[in-house]
Amino acid sequence: MSSNTIELEAIQQAFETLRRVKETFAARGWFPATSGNLSLRIKTDHQDRNRSLIAVTVSGKDKSVHTPTDFLVVDLEGKPAAASQLKPSAETLIHTALYQKVSKCAAVFHVHTVSNSLVSELYKHRGGVTFKGHELIKAFDIWEEGASITVPIVENYACIPTLAAEICKVLDSRVPGVLIRNHGIYVWGESEFAAKRHLEAFEFLFDYHVKLLILSKN
Amino acid sequence: MSSNTIELEAIQQAFETLRRVKETFAARGWFPATSGNLSLRIKTDHQDRNRSLIAVTVSGKDKSVHTPTDFLVVDLEGKPAAASQLKPSAETLIHTALYQKVSKCAAVFHVHTVSNSLVSELYKHRGGVTFKGHELIKAFDIWEEGASITVPIVENYACIPTLAAEICKVLDSRVPGVLIRNHGIYVWGESEFAAKRHLEAFEFLFDYHVKLLILSKN
Amino acid sequence: MSSNTIELEAIQQAFETLRRVKETFAARGWFPATSGNLSLRIKTDHQDRNRSLIAVTVSGKDKSVHTPTDFLVVDLEGKPAAASQLKPSAETLIHTALYQKVSKCAAVFHVHTVSNSLVSELYKHRGGVTFKGHELIKAFDIWEEGASITVPIVENYACIPTLAAEICKVLDSRVPGVLIRNHGIYVWGESEFAAKRHLEAFEFLFDYHVKLLILSKN
Amino acid sequence: MSSNTIELEAIQQAFETLRRVKETFAARGWFPATSGNLSLRIKTDHQDRNRSLIAVTVSGKDKSVHTPTDFLVVDLEGKPAAASQLKPSAETLIHTALYQKVSKCAAVFHVHTVSNSLVSELYKHRGGVTFKGHELIKAFDIWEEGASITVPIVENYACIPTLAAEICKVLDSRVPGVLIRNHGIYVWGESEFAAKRHLEAFEFLFDYHVKLLILSKN
Repeated sequence: MSSNTIELEAIQQAFETLRRVKETFAARGWFPATSGNLSLRIKTDHQDRNRSLIAVTVSGKDKSVHTPTDFLVVDLEGKPAAASQLKPSAETLIHTALYQKVSKCAAVFHVHTVSNSLVSELYKHRGGVTFKGHELIKAFDIWEEGASITVPIVENYACIPTLAAEICKVLDSRVPGVLIRNHGIYVWGESEFAAKRHLEAFEFLFDYHVKLLILSKN
Repeated sequence: MSSNTIELEAIQQAFETLRRVKETFAARGWFPATSGNLSLRIKTDHQDRNRSLIAVTVSGKDKSVHTPTDFLVVDLEGKPAAASQLKPSAETLIHTALYQKVSKCAAVFHVHTVSNSLVSELYKHRGGVTFKGHELIKAFDIWEEGASITVPIVENYACIPTLAAEICKVLDSRVPGVLIRNHGIYVWGESEFAAKRHLEAFEFLFDYHVKLLILSKN
Repeated sequence: MSSNTIELEAIQQAFETLRRVKETFAARGWFPATSGNLSLRIKTDHQDRNRSLIAVTVSGKDKSVHTPTDFLVVDLEGKPAAASQLKPSAETLIHTALYQKVSKCAAVFHVHTVSNSLVSELYKHRGGVTFKGHELIKAFDIWEEGASITVPIVENYACIPTLAAEICKVLDSRVPGVLIRNHGIYVWGESEFAAKRHLEAFEFLFDYHVKLLILSKN
Repeated sequence: MSSNTIELEAIQQAFETLRRVKETFAARGWFPATSGNLSLRIKTDHQDRNRSLIAVTVSGKDKSVHTPTDFLVVDLEGKPAAASQLKPSAETLIHTALYQKVSKCAAVFHVHTVSNSLVSELYKHRGGVTFKGHELIKAFDIWEEGASITVPIVENYACIPTLAAEICKVLDSRVPGVLIRNHGIYVWGESEFAAKRHLEAFEFLFDYHVKLLILSKN
């Protein structure tokens, strides 16, 4: 097989993985109003990670529907790898910034939920929200008893390069996620499997926290 | 093909599109107790929009079930386009009023949810509810940073022509939806795709707002 | 066809209808921990309604699973119509009491939800809970503007004949449902379709009311 | 058939039962972030219960996905019954402790939900949470009118043998479940059917209780 054939297979594999994640998250209502986007580093045999290719969701689609043009390939600058009429998600630059900055990052997921939006609004003034003493913190590969984590929160700049730069400023190597104020969460991992596990742990902690706040403040 | 054949195909296409929307929203519990209704402008080659035909849900059916008689065709006065034993939704006149008043309106969806009912009750005295600083406001094609929108709320008149007239009075060209007090929301768009995106954005904002109110007032 | 064949077909039809309702409600989580039960009057050609047969769910089954022995036939005293190893639901006597007391009653559904349990607990001391000014009240075929209804609530007697008698005492011909304190709701209708519509309307009103209470009391 | 064949069939039967339970609970979101685990006593013809074999979920898998290596067999010390590259769930020792201590225990399920975590946090200082006067208490085969139960809550020790020992200390023969602080619930029963019924009853009571607390404290 030629190198091109191998690359095509790697792309198809990445698209298929993203399709499954998209379907699962869409069924949970995690892409309201065509929001959210997903990406995956394509497993080619480039030795040079700086030449990596990224599979990413096409902009503005209803993610509860499956079509032949749901994904495209971009380089690490967010430019389509081949001439195409498809437009990558507006926020592709945030994805590519994360692939460049986070060591071993292989998947980036972005979703809006009511709970992550509420937490981002309630704790924006503190710059982050802290969780402590939860079994699910182990989902981030943090194993000490009574461990705590703080998820950073950034302002929702309309300018995507500014937003991407702000996200990169607050990265914490132990915490694979950043909240944007009333603009959902970005989560990543060393694989699609790890990124999904991280996202589910974050969303559980947000749901729990919102309800505990209601119960505690009464 | 004769003009009739073309029209029949356009009708079948519209029914099929509505069937998919109906199925999706029914699975979310958005049609409790046979409530709610959906309509779509049929794409014929009439040059004259005033002679448009509308596909609309039949009255009083369980929308979680699929039958051969779930939809019928009405004209812009809400009268069945052909002799039929099927009855259009009682609120068809609201749909046709929106097709007449809203420029480029091609789809109208009406659903009852607990969150949209709560918001309609809590803010009826102000005549509307305002949302500001949410990323999802972009779903309405409003792109300025920190943009705000106000969704109008009207009283729930039992007389449908009165209700339709009240809705037409409060229309805001930037905001593709109107709440009726304890009677759900009407949402529209230039396509079924846009109307669905608008509805999902509204419902997300309502859910968020109800929970933020609970958290803030404590 | 013999009369027996006709009766068998009517029974099969009733079982199939109950199976669909069971599947739909199970998917909504309305039968937690094998709770809840469903029944349907079998459409035979008996002229005498006092000799009606009732199809009812078998006791203690996981209602999210479909088996060949999910339903059986009882008479209006709740006794199995034929020798059988199947046991009708413990609360079959409540069903049969309703078929005897409520004119035109053709289907009875009983489910536990968190919202109906909360409402039953919060308003038991008043003997009922009142809803006013909701579009969904039309689901009960009540059409006047600003109509109100009161759903009766009875104590949860362990003795089923006592419980059945208490339910019969509080029946309101306009309101096709009775709440039992921390023991779910019984709902009925002139058809399975009507009973389902009534139940969905009640559950919507309960959900709404619980959230409005939280918002209002703050 | 040889004894080995019979044993293999018993193992396959246990894996298939666990697969169905896993699928059902995953669809409800009860295994966030690969958390939770399930086990089942394998029905062999050993007369000696101390030599029982247990089918248990493999560690760290996404339980919404079905693979050929989701389960393995361990003995009552939690050691794999055969050489295998599969790792049993980290908390397998809690399962095996329960099979040893609880008479007739045939299935153990462990899940994290927001409600069970909230209740574990709110009532940890009291060592348990009490429910009274709920119809669903009958799901635990407790039939007296006005019965009450107390679900014990233990601290979340990082050391699994310590955690298993703490759980064994607080066992109540009437109550087939123990909460761990911010670490979900362990539930068991004489069959997979009974354990599922118990778990659904507990989760209903937790959901109800959290909402009643919010309503009552206002």
